[in-house]
Amino acid sequence: MLRRPWKRGTQCFVNTPDGWQILEINTLFKNPHIQVLQERVVPPGEARARNWTVVRRKQAVVIAPVTENGNIVLIHQARIPIRKVLWEFPAGQIDGSFEPGMDTIRETALRELTEETGFSLVAGGELIYLGYYYSSQGYSDEMPHLFLARHVKPTGLGHQPDDSESILECREFSFQELSTMIADNVIQDANTLALFARLSAKKLLP
Amino acid sequence: MLRRPWKRGTQCFVNTPDGWQILEINTLFKNPHIQVLQERVVPPGEARARNWTVVRRKQAVVIAPVTENGNIVLIHQARIPIRKVLWEFPAGQIDGSFEPGMDTIRETALRELTEETGFSLVAGGELIYLGYYYSSQGYSDEMPHLFLARHVKPTGLGHQPDDSESILECREFSFQELSTMIADNVIQDANTLALFARLSAKKLLP
Repeated sequence: MLRRPWKRGTQCFVNTPDGWQILEINTLFKNPHIQVLQERVVPPGEARARNWTVVRRKQAVVIAPVTENGNIVLIHQARIPIRKVLWEFPAGQIDGSFEPGMDTIRETALRELTEETGFSLVAGGELIYLGYYYSSQGYSDEMPHLFLARHVKPTGLGHQPDDSESILECREFSFQELSTMIADNVIQDANTLALFARLSAKKLLP
Repeated sequence: MLRRPWKRGTQCFVNTPDGWQILEINTLFKNPHIQVLQERVVPPGEARARNWTVVRRKQAVVIAPVTENGNIVLIHQARIPIRKVLWEFPAGQIDGSFEPGMDTIRETALRELTEETGFSLVAGGELIYLGYYYSSQGYSDEMPHLFLARHVKPTGLGHQPDDSESILECREFSFQELSTMIADNVIQDANTLALFARLSAKKLLP
């Protein structure tokens, strides 16, 4: 259970409490959006160090907005890396810190909900935390936090996306429509699928 | 519907059939695991070009192995980028091509199933394709293909993971156990959550 971090140049040596030995971390590339690291690490219970390329990203939020009628609000967003326009739950990155506190995470969720969909919580509505997930734990530390926003209604101001976003449309779907879109490979993003799985396992779907 | 690709140095100009204009792609970083690109793109229906950082990765496969008793086989794998050991469906990258054909995708799924779990299809068992998803469509083109392997049984040889993998354990869970692990934030990876969502929406769960 010892913890002995020290650093010299790009070198470091840390034994984490749960048995990970971090031998070395080098930055290979960095810009405002991602950081690419080369790490030398011994996983718990192993004898040998492994060299691994890791992409660091900010944490994120994903929100399932449900109306008083039990409808689900999705946005239709152009996604440059895959050259597609996808129907998705609203989502966004958390600015300011790589390890944000729960207040910041919840504030970001409420802001992204309103900006991206033009809906917000009704009086007495709840923003319910459903844990988090890793989008691609084999090479990235990206970690979106999952929320159910119940219930929501239109603000009347429409959606006001950030300048960097390409949201073409926003509309309500019934639970049955969403379920069919998932079955038919129309819903294709990890955010919406992971949050649907959490909602389904927690029996929170209409 | 015109398609006019041309290249000079890092420049390129393409109008895709569905309205994407690709103005320029520059490679910022590349190693055997990832490629980081800076792209200048006009999404469909927009007037203005956007500058975007994109991480290219190989495609992947994820397999939900179900036994004749209706149990689900998971592996317990150490994941360096997040310093955690997670219970997950078996999965792996597709080598050889960034745009593999369905034969290669299915072969990779069957190989990863056997290597990582020590289970394989029973005589007459099926490998059922359930579409694909994008792990983080805001910055990456990574696209895992989803399969149900029904039914599977132990090969008797145990799991024989690749040298680069850190699989500590492999065992069967009931559907109820898996569902509880998803509800309780024990299952934390996009692969397992996305495949559970697809199985659930297609009513393929026990």
